[in-house]
Amino acid sequence: MERIGTLVVVGVGLIGGSFALALKQAGKVERVIGVGRRTKTLDIARQLGIIDEAAADCSCAARADLVMLAMPVGQTRAVLASLAPHVGPATVVTDAGSTKSEVVHAAREELGESFPRFVPGHPIAGTEHSGPQAAFASLYRDQRVVLTPVKETDAVATAHVREAWQACGAKVYELEPELHDRVLATVSHLPHLLAFALVDLVAQSDDPEELFSYTAGGFRDFTRIASSHPEMWRDICLANRSAVLKELQRYEDVLAGLRDALERSEGAAIETLFERARKARNDWLARSKAPGSDE
Amino acid sequence: MERIGTLVVVGVGLIGGSFALALKQAGKVERVIGVGRRTKTLDIARQLGIIDEAAADCSCAARADLVMLAMPVGQTRAVLASLAPHVGPATVVTDAGSTKSEVVHAAREELGESFPRFVPGHPIAGTEHSGPQAAFASLYRDQRVVLTPVKETDAVATAHVREAWQACGAKVYELEPELHDRVLATVSHLPHLLAFALVDLVAQSDDPEELFSYTAGGFRDFTRIASSHPEMWRDICLANRSAVLKELQRYEDVLAGLRDALERSEGAAIETLFERARKARNDWLARSKAPGSDE
Repeated sequence: MERIGTLVVVGVGLIGGSFALALKQAGKVERVIGVGRRTKTLDIARQLGIIDEAAADCSCAARADLVMLAMPVGQTRAVLASLAPHVGPATVVTDAGSTKSEVVHAAREELGESFPRFVPGHPIAGTEHSGPQAAFASLYRDQRVVLTPVKETDAVATAHVREAWQACGAKVYELEPELHDRVLATVSHLPHLLAFALVDLVAQSDDPEELFSYTAGGFRDFTRIASSHPEMWRDICLANRSAVLKELQRYEDVLAGLRDALERSEGAAIETLFERARKARNDWLARSKAPGSDE
Repeated sequence: MERIGTLVVVGVGLIGGSFALALKQAGKVERVIGVGRRTKTLDIARQLGIIDEAAADCSCAARADLVMLAMPVGQTRAVLASLAPHVGPATVVTDAGSTKSEVVHAAREELGESFPRFVPGHPIAGTEHSGPQAAFASLYRDQRVVLTPVKETDAVATAHVREAWQACGAKVYELEPELHDRVLATVSHLPHLLAFALVDLVAQSDDPEELFSYTAGGFRDFTRIASSHPEMWRDICLANRSAVLKELQRYEDVLAGLRDALERSEGAAIETLFERARKARNDWLARSKAPGSDE
Protein backbone atom coordinates (compact mmCIF):
# COMPACT_ATOMS: atom_id res chain seq x y z
CA MET A 1 0.00 0.00 0.00
CA GLU A 2 2.23 2.78 -1.31
CA ARG A 3 -0.45 5.31 -0.65
CA ILE A 4 -3.84 4.89 1.06
CA GLY A 5 -6.59 5.99 -1.31
CA THR A 6 -9.41 6.12 1.22
CA LEU A 7 -8.94 5.92 4.96
CA VAL A 8 -11.99 5.51 7.17
CA VAL A 9 -11.50 6.57 10.80
CA VAL A 10 -14.17 5.45 13.22
CA GLY A 11 -13.94 7.73 16.28
CA VAL A 12 -12.25 10.97 15.34
CA GLY A 13 -10.73 11.93 18.69
CA LEU A 14 -7.19 12.33 19.98
CA ILE A 15 -6.05 8.92 18.69
CA GLY A 16 -7.94 8.55 15.41
CA GLY A 17 -7.59 12.24 14.59
CA SER A 18 -3.84 12.25 15.16
CA PHE A 19 -3.48 9.13 12.98
CA ALA A 20 -5.30 10.88 10.12
CA LEU A 21 -3.31 14.10 10.54
CA ALA A 22 0.01 12.26 10.64
CA LEU A 23 -0.77 10.30 7.45
CA LYS A 24 -1.92 13.48 5.72
CA GLN A 25 1.21 15.29 6.74
CA ALA A 26 3.31 12.39 5.43
CA GLY A 27 1.44 12.53 2.11
CA LYS A 28 0.37 8.92 2.61
CA VAL A 29 -3.40 9.29 2.32
CA GLU A 30 -5.66 10.74 -0.32
CA ARG A 31 -9.00 10.97 1.41
CA VAL A 32 -10.14 10.56 5.00
CA ILE A 33 -13.73 9.75 5.94
CA GLY A 34 -14.69 10.18 9.58
CA VAL A 35 -17.38 8.07 11.22
CA GLY A 36 -18.74 8.99 14.63
CA ARG A 37 -21.66 9.14 17.02
CA ARG A 38 -21.82 12.92 17.20
CA THR A 39 -22.34 15.21 14.22
CA LYS A 40 -20.74 18.07 16.12
CA THR A 41 -17.50 16.17 16.67
CA LEU A 42 -17.36 15.28 12.97
CA ASP A 43 -17.98 18.92 12.06
CA ILE A 44 -15.08 20.03 14.24
CA ALA A 45 -12.86 17.32 12.73
CA ARG A 46 -13.73 18.55 9.25
CA GLN A 47 -13.10 22.18 10.17
CA LEU A 48 -9.72 21.19 11.58
CA GLY A 49 -8.78 19.42 8.35
CA ILE A 50 -8.59 16.04 10.07
CA ILE A 51 -11.23 14.46 7.83
CA ASP A 52 -12.45 15.32 4.36
CA GLU A 53 -15.88 13.80 4.68
CA ALA A 54 -18.18 12.71 7.50
CA ALA A 55 -20.33 9.61 7.60
CA ALA A 56 -22.94 8.51 10.09
CA ASP A 57 -22.28 4.78 9.71
CA CYS A 58 -19.77 2.24 8.51
CA SER A 59 -21.22 1.65 5.02
CA CYS A 60 -18.51 3.95 3.65
CA ALA A 61 -16.01 1.20 4.50
CA ALA A 62 -16.87 -0.40 1.15
CA ARG A 63 -14.70 2.31 -0.44
CA ALA A 64 -11.88 2.04 2.08
CA ASP A 65 -8.35 0.75 1.65
CA LEU A 66 -7.83 1.04 5.38
CA VAL A 67 -10.27 1.31 8.28
CA MET A 68 -8.97 2.54 11.64
CA LEU A 69 -11.16 1.87 14.67
CA ALA A 70 -10.36 4.47 17.31
CA MET A 71 -13.45 4.76 19.46
CA PRO A 72 -13.51 3.70 23.15
CA VAL A 73 -12.68 0.02 23.24
CA GLY A 74 -16.05 -0.93 24.77
CA GLN A 75 -17.74 -0.11 21.45
CA THR A 76 -15.49 -2.44 19.48
CA ARG A 77 -17.85 -5.39 19.08
CA ALA A 78 -20.82 -3.25 18.05
CA VAL A 79 -18.73 -1.30 15.55
CA LEU A 80 -17.20 -4.49 14.12
CA ALA A 81 -20.70 -5.93 13.69
CA SER A 82 -21.89 -2.86 11.82
CA LEU A 83 -18.70 -2.78 9.78
CA ALA A 84 -18.58 -6.46 8.78
CA PRO A 85 -21.07 -6.39 5.86
CA HIS A 86 -19.21 -3.47 4.25
CA VAL A 87 -15.62 -4.65 4.39
CA GLY A 88 -14.35 -4.87 0.80
CA PRO A 89 -12.27 -7.85 -0.40
CA ALA A 90 -9.03 -5.86 -0.14
CA THR A 91 -9.93 -3.58 2.77
CA VAL A 92 -7.57 -3.80 5.72
CA VAL A 93 -9.04 -3.09 9.15
CA THR A 94 -7.01 -2.12 12.19
CA ASP A 95 -7.74 -0.66 15.59
CA ALA A 96 -6.10 1.45 18.27
CA GLY A 97 -7.68 -0.11 21.33
CA SER A 98 -5.64 -0.17 24.53
CA THR A 99 -6.53 -3.81 25.14
CA LYS A 100 -6.12 -6.57 22.61
CA SER A 101 -7.36 -10.02 23.70
CA GLU A 102 -11.02 -9.01 23.83
CA VAL A 103 -10.70 -7.04 20.60
CA VAL A 104 -9.22 -10.07 18.80
CA HIS A 105 -11.95 -12.29 20.22
CA ALA A 106 -14.70 -9.93 19.04
CA ALA A 107 -13.11 -9.43 15.62
CA ARG A 108 -12.82 -13.17 15.05
CA GLU A 109 -16.53 -13.58 15.79
CA GLU A 110 -17.83 -10.50 13.99
CA LEU A 111 -15.65 -10.15 10.89
CA GLY A 112 -15.96 -13.72 9.64
CA GLU A 113 -13.96 -14.20 6.44
CA SER A 114 -12.52 -10.68 6.65
CA PHE A 115 -10.84 -11.51 9.97
CA PRO A 116 -7.43 -12.27 8.34
CA ARG A 117 -7.37 -8.65 7.16
CA PHE A 118 -7.94 -7.35 10.69
CA VAL A 119 -4.64 -6.25 12.25
CA PRO A 120 -5.04 -5.53 15.98
CA GLY A 121 -2.93 -2.58 17.10
CA HIS A 122 -2.26 -0.25 19.98
CA PRO A 123 -0.34 3.02 19.79
CA ILE A 124 1.29 3.60 23.18
CA ALA A 125 0.90 7.31 23.03
CA GLY A 126 -1.65 9.85 24.10
CA THR A 127 -2.25 12.81 26.29
CA GLU A 128 -4.83 13.39 29.00
CA HIS A 129 -6.86 15.46 26.52
CA SER A 130 -9.53 14.08 24.24
CA GLY A 131 -11.60 14.94 21.19
CA PRO A 132 -10.56 16.06 17.69
CA GLN A 133 -9.33 19.42 18.98
CA ALA A 134 -6.69 17.50 21.00
CA ALA A 135 -5.35 15.69 17.91
CA PHE A 136 -1.97 16.61 16.42
CA ALA A 137 0.17 15.15 13.66
CA SER A 138 3.27 14.46 15.74
CA LEU A 139 1.56 12.49 18.53
CA TYR A 140 3.09 9.20 17.40
CA ARG A 141 6.55 10.40 16.46
CA ASP A 142 9.14 8.14 18.11
CA GLN A 143 6.42 6.44 20.14
CA ARG A 144 5.77 2.72 20.24
CA VAL A 145 2.92 1.05 18.42
CA VAL A 146 2.25 -2.59 19.26
CA LEU A 147 0.62 -4.82 16.69
CA THR A 148 -0.78 -8.13 17.92
CA PRO A 149 -1.43 -10.22 14.80
CA VAL A 150 -2.61 -13.79 15.40
CA LYS A 151 -2.04 -16.94 13.39
CA GLU A 152 -4.88 -16.19 10.92
CA THR A 153 -3.71 -12.64 10.25
CA ASP A 154 -2.61 -11.95 6.68
CA ALA A 155 1.07 -10.96 6.65
CA VAL A 156 0.47 -8.47 3.86
CA ALA A 157 -2.26 -6.74 5.88
CA THR A 158 0.09 -6.55 8.86
CA ALA A 159 2.79 -5.05 6.65
CA HIS A 160 0.37 -2.38 5.39
CA VAL A 161 -0.60 -1.35 8.89
CA ARG A 162 3.03 -1.38 9.98
CA GLU A 163 3.93 0.95 7.08
CA ALA A 164 1.08 3.32 7.92
CA TRP A 165 2.29 3.65 11.50
CA GLN A 166 5.88 4.06 10.38
CA ALA A 167 4.70 6.89 8.12
CA CYS A 168 3.33 8.50 11.30
CA GLY A 169 6.84 8.33 12.76
CA ALA A 170 6.09 5.46 15.15
CA LYS A 171 8.28 2.49 16.04
CA VAL A 172 6.30 -0.70 15.49
CA TYR A 173 6.61 -3.79 17.69
CA GLU A 174 4.72 -7.06 17.77
CA LEU A 175 3.45 -8.91 20.82
CA GLU A 176 0.99 -11.71 21.49
CA PRO A 177 -2.38 -10.16 22.46
CA GLU A 178 -2.32 -11.73 25.94
CA LEU A 179 1.21 -10.57 26.69
CA HIS A 180 0.32 -7.09 25.46
CA ASP A 181 -2.59 -7.00 27.87
CA ARG A 182 -0.51 -8.16 30.82
CA VAL A 183 2.22 -5.63 30.12
CA LEU A 184 -0.20 -2.74 29.64
CA ALA A 185 -2.19 -3.65 32.75
CA THR A 186 0.97 -3.04 34.76
CA VAL A 187 2.44 0.02 33.09
CA SER A 188 -0.70 1.85 31.96
CA HIS A 189 -4.07 0.56 33.10
CA LEU A 190 -3.19 0.16 36.79
CA PRO A 191 -1.48 3.60 37.01
CA HIS A 192 -4.55 5.26 35.52
CA LEU A 193 -6.80 3.54 38.01
CA LEU A 194 -4.50 4.56 40.89
CA ALA A 195 -4.41 8.19 39.77
CA PHE A 196 -8.20 8.40 39.43
CA ALA A 197 -8.50 6.83 42.90
CA LEU A 198 -6.14 9.35 44.50
CA VAL A 199 -7.86 12.38 43.01
CA ASP A 200 -11.20 10.95 44.09
CA LEU A 201 -9.84 10.55 47.62
CA VAL A 202 -9.03 14.26 47.65
CA ALA A 203 -12.30 15.19 45.99
CA GLN A 204 -14.28 13.23 48.61
CA SER A 205 -12.45 14.88 51.53
CA ASP A 206 -13.98 17.51 53.79
CA ASP A 207 -12.36 20.50 52.09
CA PRO A 208 -11.08 19.50 48.64
CA GLU A 209 -10.33 23.09 47.58
CA GLU A 210 -8.07 23.61 50.59
CA LEU A 211 -6.31 20.31 49.94
CA PHE A 212 -5.78 21.00 46.25
CA SER A 213 -4.37 24.42 47.14
CA TYR A 214 -1.50 22.78 49.05
CA THR A 215 -0.45 20.50 46.21
CA ALA A 216 2.83 20.96 44.39
CA GLY A 217 4.31 19.77 41.10
CA GLY A 218 4.59 16.18 42.29
CA PHE A 219 0.85 15.86 42.82
CA ARG A 220 0.13 17.59 39.54
CA ASP A 221 2.32 15.16 37.59
CA PHE A 222 1.21 12.13 39.57
CA THR A 223 -2.43 12.86 38.79
CA ARG A 224 -2.11 14.13 35.22
CA ILE A 225 -3.54 10.89 33.85
CA ALA A 226 -6.61 11.33 36.10
CA SER A 227 -7.72 13.98 33.63
CA SER A 228 -8.04 11.24 31.00
CA HIS A 229 -11.27 10.25 29.32
CA PRO A 230 -13.49 8.41 31.88
CA GLU A 231 -15.50 6.36 29.39
CA MET A 232 -12.39 5.26 27.53
CA TRP A 233 -10.71 4.16 30.74
CA ARG A 234 -13.81 2.45 32.07
CA ASP A 235 -13.86 0.42 28.85
CA ILE A 236 -10.17 -0.40 29.10
CA CYS A 237 -10.54 -1.62 32.69
CA LEU A 238 -13.54 -3.76 31.75
CA ALA A 239 -11.97 -5.13 28.56
CA ASN A 240 -8.75 -6.05 30.37
CA ARG A 241 -10.50 -6.95 33.58
CA SER A 242 -8.63 -10.07 34.61
CA ALA A 243 -5.15 -8.67 33.97
CA VAL A 244 -6.03 -5.38 35.70
CA LEU A 245 -7.51 -7.21 38.69
CA LYS A 246 -4.40 -9.31 38.97
CA GLU A 247 -2.11 -6.29 38.91
CA LEU A 248 -4.37 -4.42 41.31
CA GLN A 249 -4.15 -7.34 43.72
CA ARG A 250 -0.34 -7.33 43.47
CA TYR A 251 -0.32 -3.59 44.10
CA GLU A 252 -2.60 -3.93 47.10
CA ASP A 253 -0.15 -6.51 48.45
CA VAL A 254 2.74 -4.06 48.07
CA LEU A 255 0.72 -1.38 49.87
CA ALA A 256 -0.21 -3.81 52.64
CA GLY A 257 3.48 -4.56 53.13
CA LEU A 258 4.29 -0.87 53.36
CA ARG A 259 1.43 -0.34 55.80
CA ASP A 260 2.69 -3.16 58.02
CA ALA A 261 6.18 -1.70 57.98
CA LEU A 262 4.86 1.75 58.79
CA GLU A 263 2.64 0.48 61.59
CA ARG A 264 5.70 -1.13 63.16
CA SER A 265 7.91 1.90 62.37
CA GLU A 266 10.26 -0.36 60.42
CA GLY A 267 12.23 2.39 58.74
CA ALA A 268 14.73 0.02 57.14
CA ALA A 269 12.05 -1.94 55.28
CA ILE A 270 10.44 1.25 54.01
CA GLU A 271 13.75 2.73 52.89
CA THR A 272 14.72 -0.52 51.17
CA LEU A 273 11.58 -0.46 49.06
CA PHE A 274 11.90 3.27 48.29
CA GLU A 275 15.58 2.83 47.39
CA ARG A 276 14.86 -0.16 45.15
CA ALA A 277 12.11 1.77 43.37
CA ARG A 278 14.27 4.85 42.88
CA LYS A 279 17.10 2.77 41.50
CA ALA A 280 14.80 0.89 39.11
CA ARG A 281 13.31 4.14 37.84
CA ASN A 282 16.63 5.90 37.46
CA ASP A 283 18.17 2.89 35.70
CA TRP A 284 15.26 2.86 33.29
CA LEU A 285 15.66 6.59 32.60
CA ALA A 286 19.37 6.09 32.04
CA ARG A 287 18.68 3.21 29.62
CA SER A 288 16.10 5.19 27.71
CA LYS A 289 18.52 8.09 27.27
CA ALA A 290 21.45 5.86 26.30
CA PRO A 291 22.82 6.03 22.77
CA GLY A 292 21.32 3.37 20.56
CA SER A 293 18.27 3.22 22.78
CA ASP A 294 14.94 3.14 21.03
CA GLU A 295 13.19 5.45 23.46
CA MET B 1 15.90 41.47 60.21
CA GLU B 2 16.55 43.75 57.25
CA ARG B 3 19.50 41.65 56.23
CA ILE B 4 20.73 38.34 57.67
CA GLY B 5 24.32 38.70 58.80
CA THR B 6 25.09 35.01 59.26
CA LEU B 7 22.85 32.20 58.05
CA VAL B 8 23.63 28.66 59.15
CA VAL B 9 22.16 25.95 56.94
CA VAL B 10 22.19 22.44 58.39
CA GLY B 11 21.84 20.02 55.46
CA VAL B 12 22.97 21.70 52.26
CA GLY B 13 20.91 19.78 49.73
CA LEU B 14 18.14 20.72 47.33
CA ILE B 15 16.05 22.49 49.99
CA GLY B 16 18.68 24.13 52.21
CA GLY B 17 20.91 24.92 49.25
CA SER B 18 18.13 26.58 47.29
CA PHE B 19 17.16 28.64 50.36
CA ALA B 20 20.74 29.94 50.65
CA LEU B 21 21.01 30.64 46.93
CA ALA B 22 17.70 32.49 46.85
CA LEU B 23 18.64 34.71 49.81
CA LYS B 24 22.03 35.42 48.26
CA GLN B 25 20.45 36.32 44.96
CA ALA B 26 18.03 38.65 46.78
CA GLY B 27 20.96 40.30 48.55
CA LYS B 28 19.43 39.38 51.89
CA VAL B 29 22.31 37.47 53.44
CA GLU B 30 25.92 38.33 54.12
CA ARG B 31 27.47 34.99 54.99
CA VAL B 32 26.27 31.40 54.77
CA ILE B 33 27.78 28.60 56.84
CA GLY B 34 26.93 25.06 55.83
CA VAL B 35 26.78 22.23 58.35
CA GLY B 36 26.60 18.64 57.19
CA ARG B 37 27.54 15.02 57.69
CA ARG B 38 29.66 14.70 54.59
CA THR B 39 32.72 16.81 53.87
CA LYS B 40 32.35 16.09 50.16
CA THR B 41 28.83 17.53 50.05
CA LEU B 42 29.99 20.67 51.84
CA ASP B 43 32.89 21.00 49.41
CA ILE B 44 30.51 20.82 46.46
CA ALA B 45 28.24 23.39 48.11
CA ARG B 46 31.16 25.74 48.56
CA GLN B 47 32.33 25.24 44.98
CA LEU B 48 28.83 26.02 43.76
CA GLY B 49 28.77 29.24 45.79
CA ILE B 50 25.90 28.02 47.96
CA ILE B 51 27.87 28.40 51.20
CA ASP B 52 30.83 30.55 52.11
CA GLU B 53 32.13 28.36 54.89
CA ALA B 54 31.72 24.77 56.02
CA ALA B 55 31.38 23.53 59.58
CA ALA B 56 31.34 20.01 60.96
CA ASP B 57 28.97 20.76 63.83
CA CYS B 58 26.42 23.23 65.11
CA SER B 59 28.71 25.26 67.35
CA CYS B 60 28.85 27.91 64.61
CA ALA B 61 25.21 28.68 65.43
CA ALA B 62 26.48 30.96 68.18
CA ARG B 63 27.32 33.45 65.41
CA ALA B 64 24.04 32.97 63.52
CA ASP B 65 21.14 35.35 63.04
CA LEU B 66 19.17 32.57 61.41
CA VAL B 67 19.58 28.80 61.46
CA MET B 68 17.79 26.74 58.80
CA LEU B 69 17.45 23.01 59.47
CA ALA B 70 17.12 21.26 56.13
CA MET B 71 18.36 17.73 56.69
CA PRO B 72 16.03 14.68 56.45
CA VAL B 73 13.34 15.14 59.08
CA GLY B 74 14.34 12.01 61.00
CA GLN B 75 17.53 13.73 62.14
CA THR B 76 15.65 16.69 63.60
CA ARG B 77 15.78 15.73 67.26
CA ALA B 78 19.47 14.86 67.22
CA VAL B 79 20.36 18.07 65.39
CA LEU B 80 18.22 20.17 67.74
CA ALA B 81 19.96 18.58 70.72
CA SER B 82 23.39 19.38 69.33
CA LEU B 83 22.25 22.86 68.37
CA ALA B 84 20.58 23.83 71.66
CA PRO B 85 23.71 24.82 73.67
CA HIS B 86 24.85 27.13 70.86
CA VAL B 87 21.68 29.08 70.10
CA GLY B 88 22.40 32.75 70.75
CA PRO B 89 19.93 34.95 72.63
CA ALA B 90 18.73 36.55 69.38
CA THR B 91 19.24 33.61 67.03
CA VAL B 92 16.12 32.54 65.19
CA VAL B 93 15.86 28.86 64.24
CA THR B 94 13.59 27.50 61.57
CA ASP B 95 13.28 24.25 59.65
CA ALA B 96 12.08 22.95 56.31
CA GLY B 97 10.79 19.56 57.42
CA SER B 98 7.88 18.09 55.52
CA THR B 99 6.14 17.13 58.75
CA LYS B 100 5.49 19.49 61.62
CA SER B 101 3.88 17.96 64.72
CA GLU B 102 6.86 15.77 65.59
CA VAL B 103 9.28 18.56 64.80
CA VAL B 104 7.45 20.93 67.15
CA HIS B 105 7.37 18.26 69.82
CA ALA B 106 11.11 17.63 69.54
CA ALA B 107 11.95 21.35 69.44
CA ARG B 108 9.91 22.04 72.57
CA GLU B 109 11.85 19.35 74.41
CA GLU B 110 15.31 20.03 73.03
CA LEU B 111 15.51 23.80 72.66
CA GLY B 112 14.31 24.73 76.14
CA GLU B 113 14.21 28.49 76.58
CA SER B 114 15.15 29.07 72.92
CA PHE B 115 11.95 27.32 71.82
CA PRO B 116 9.99 30.60 71.33
CA ARG B 117 12.54 31.55 68.66
CA PHE B 118 11.98 28.30 66.78
CA VAL B 119 9.64 28.86 63.83
CA PRO B 120 8.55 25.55 62.28
CA GLY B 121 8.22 25.78 58.51
CA HIS B 122 7.72 23.73 55.37
CA PRO B 123 8.34 24.90 51.83
CA ILE B 124 5.95 23.04 49.53
CA ALA B 125 8.39 22.88 46.69
CA GLY B 126 11.03 20.52 45.47
CA THR B 127 12.05 18.30 42.65
CA GLU B 128 12.83 14.59 42.54
CA HIS B 129 16.53 15.46 42.56
CA SER B 130 18.64 15.86 45.67
CA GLY B 131 22.00 17.17 46.86
CA PRO B 132 23.60 20.62 46.55
CA GLN B 133 24.03 20.20 42.79
CA ALA B 134 20.21 20.05 42.52
CA ALA B 135 19.76 23.40 44.32
CA PHE B 136 18.72 26.52 42.41
CA ALA B 137 17.77 30.04 43.46
CA SER B 138 14.30 30.11 41.93
CA LEU B 139 13.01 26.87 43.48
CA TYR B 140 10.65 28.74 45.83
CA ARG B 141 9.44 31.45 43.49
CA ASP B 142 5.62 31.59 43.62
CA GLN B 143 5.55 28.40 45.69
CA ARG B 144 3.85 28.02 49.06
CA VAL B 145 5.69 27.94 52.33
CA VAL B 146 3.69 26.94 55.39
CA LEU B 147 4.77 28.17 58.81
CA THR B 148 3.26 26.42 61.81
CA PRO B 149 4.02 28.65 64.81
CA VAL B 150 2.49 27.55 68.12
CA LYS B 151 1.31 29.59 71.10
CA GLU B 152 4.82 29.99 72.55
CA THR B 153 6.35 31.14 69.27
CA ASP B 154 7.71 34.68 69.27
CA ALA B 155 5.80 36.79 66.75
CA VAL B 156 8.94 38.71 65.82
CA ALA B 157 10.80 35.47 65.07
CA THR B 158 7.89 34.34 62.89
CA ALA B 159 7.97 37.67 61.05
CA HIS B 160 11.71 37.29 60.37
CA VAL B 161 11.27 33.83 58.91
CA ARG B 162 8.29 35.00 56.87
CA GLU B 163 10.38 37.85 55.42
CA ALA B 164 13.23 35.51 54.56
CA TRP B 165 10.88 33.24 52.63
CA GLN B 166 9.23 36.18 50.92
CA ALA B 167 12.70 37.33 49.84
CA CYS B 168 13.01 33.89 48.18
CA GLY B 169 9.86 34.68 46.21
CA ALA B 170 7.60 32.34 48.20
CA LYS B 171 4.04 32.89 49.34
CA VAL B 172 3.82 32.29 53.08
CA TYR B 173 0.83 30.70 54.81
CA GLU B 174 0.22 29.65 58.40
CA LEU B 175 -1.43 26.44 59.56
CA GLU B 176 -1.66 24.54 62.83
CA PRO B 177 1.02 21.81 62.85
CA GLU B 178 -1.55 19.02 63.06
CA LEU B 179 -3.65 20.38 60.20
CA HIS B 180 -0.49 20.82 58.13
CA ASP B 181 0.37 17.18 58.68
CA ARG B 182 -3.09 15.94 57.75
CA VAL B 183 -3.17 18.03 54.57
CA LEU B 184 0.31 17.01 53.48
CA ALA B 185 -0.33 13.33 54.22
CA THR B 186 -3.07 13.45 51.60
CA VAL B 187 -1.55 15.59 48.89
CA SER B 188 2.14 14.72 49.22
CA HIS B 189 3.16 11.89 51.53
CA LEU B 190 0.58 9.37 50.31
CA PRO B 191 1.26 10.08 46.60
CA HIS B 192 4.99 9.55 47.14
CA LEU B 193 4.35 6.26 48.87
CA LEU B 194 2.01 5.16 46.06
CA ALA B 195 4.53 6.07 43.37
CA PHE B 196 7.36 4.21 45.09
CA ALA B 197 5.02 1.21 45.47
CA LEU B 198 4.10 1.18 41.79
CA VAL B 199 7.68 1.37 40.56
CA ASP B 200 8.61 -1.37 42.98
CA LEU B 201 5.79 -3.52 41.60
CA VAL B 202 7.34 -3.15 38.13
CA ALA B 203 10.86 -3.65 39.44
CA GLN B 204 9.83 -6.89 41.18
CA SER B 205 8.16 -8.30 38.07
CA ASP B 206 9.60 -11.10 35.93
CA ASP B 207 10.99 -8.82 33.22
CA PRO B 208 11.20 -5.23 34.48
CA GLU B 209 13.22 -3.99 31.49
CA GLU B 210 10.57 -5.21 29.06
CA LEU B 211 7.82 -3.63 31.16
CA PHE B 212 9.60 -0.29 31.47
CA SER B 213 10.17 -0.29 27.70
CA TYR B 214 6.39 -0.21 27.12
CA THR B 215 5.75 2.76 29.36
CA ALA B 216 4.65 6.10 27.98
CA GLY B 217 4.55 9.67 29.26
CA GLY B 218 1.75 8.92 31.73
CA PHE B 219 3.85 6.37 33.60
CA ARG B 220 6.87 8.64 33.53
CA ASP B 221 4.94 11.53 35.08
CA PHE B 222 3.05 9.33 37.52
CA THR B 223 6.27 7.91 38.87
CA ARG B 224 8.49 10.99 38.75
CA ILE B 225 8.27 11.38 42.55
CA ALA B 226 9.52 7.80 42.93
CA SER B 227 12.95 9.14 42.03
CA SER B 228 12.86 11.19 45.25
CA HIS B 229 15.29 10.77 48.11
CA PRO B 230 14.53 7.43 49.89
CA GLU B 231 15.90 8.40 53.31
CA MET B 232 14.07 11.70 53.31
CA TRP B 233 10.79 10.03 52.43
CA ARG B 234 11.29 7.20 54.90
CA ASP B 235 11.70 9.86 57.59
CA ILE B 236 8.62 11.76 56.46
CA CYS B 237 6.49 8.60 56.53
CA LEU B 238 7.75 7.72 60.01
CA ALA B 239 7.42 11.26 61.37
CA ASN B 240 3.88 11.62 60.05
CA ARG B 241 3.03 8.00 60.62
CA SER B 242 -0.48 8.26 62.01
CA ALA B 243 -1.74 10.73 59.40
CA VAL B 244 -0.10 8.76 56.58
CA LEU B 245 -1.55 5.48 57.86
CA LYS B 246 -4.99 7.04 58.04
CA GLU B 247 -4.80 8.33 54.47
CA LEU B 248 -3.35 5.05 53.26
CA GLN B 249 -6.30 3.23 54.81
CA ARG B 250 -8.73 5.61 53.10
CA TYR B 251 -6.93 5.03 49.82
CA GLU B 252 -7.02 1.26 50.25
CA ASP B 253 -10.77 1.59 50.79
CA VAL B 254 -11.17 3.49 47.52
CA LEU B 255 -9.14 0.81 45.72
CA ALA B 256 -11.19 -1.96 47.31
CA GLY B 257 -14.35 -0.26 46.05
CA LEU B 258 -12.91 -0.06 42.54
CA ARG B 259 -11.84 -3.69 42.72
CA ASP B 260 -15.34 -4.77 43.76
CA ALA B 261 -16.85 -2.79 40.91
CA LEU B 262 -14.39 -4.27 38.43
CA GLU B 263 -14.93 -7.82 39.68
CA ARG B 264 -18.66 -7.35 39.07
CA SER B 265 -18.05 -5.52 35.77
CA GLU B 266 -20.00 -2.55 37.11
CA GLY B 267 -18.98 -0.10 34.42
CA ALA B 268 -21.24 2.67 35.66
CA ALA B 269 -19.67 2.74 39.14
CA ILE B 270 -16.17 2.83 37.66
CA GLU B 271 -17.04 5.57 35.21
CA THR B 272 -18.72 7.62 37.95
CA LEU B 273 -15.56 7.59 40.04
CA PHE B 274 -13.31 8.35 37.05
CA GLU B 275 -15.61 11.15 35.94
CA ARG B 276 -15.76 12.67 39.44
CA ALA B 277 -11.97 12.55 39.70
CA ARG B 278 -11.44 14.10 36.29
CA LYS B 279 -13.88 16.89 37.07
CA ALA B 280 -12.26 17.61 40.44
CA ARG B 281 -8.80 17.75 38.87
CA ASN B 282 -9.87 19.89 35.94
CA ASP B 283 -11.78 22.28 38.23
CA TRP B 284 -8.68 22.63 40.39
CA LEU B 285 -6.51 23.35 37.34
CA ALA B 286 -9.04 25.92 36.17
CA ARG B 287 -9.06 27.58 39.61
CA SER B 288 -5.29 27.66 39.79
CA LYS B 289 -5.09 29.33 36.39
CA ALA B 290 -7.87 31.81 37.14
CA PRO B 291 -7.01 35.51 37.40
CA GLY B 292 -6.46 36.55 40.98
CA SER B 293 -5.52 33.03 41.90
CA ASP B 294 -2.48 32.59 44.06
CA GLU B 295 -1.14 29.56 42.22
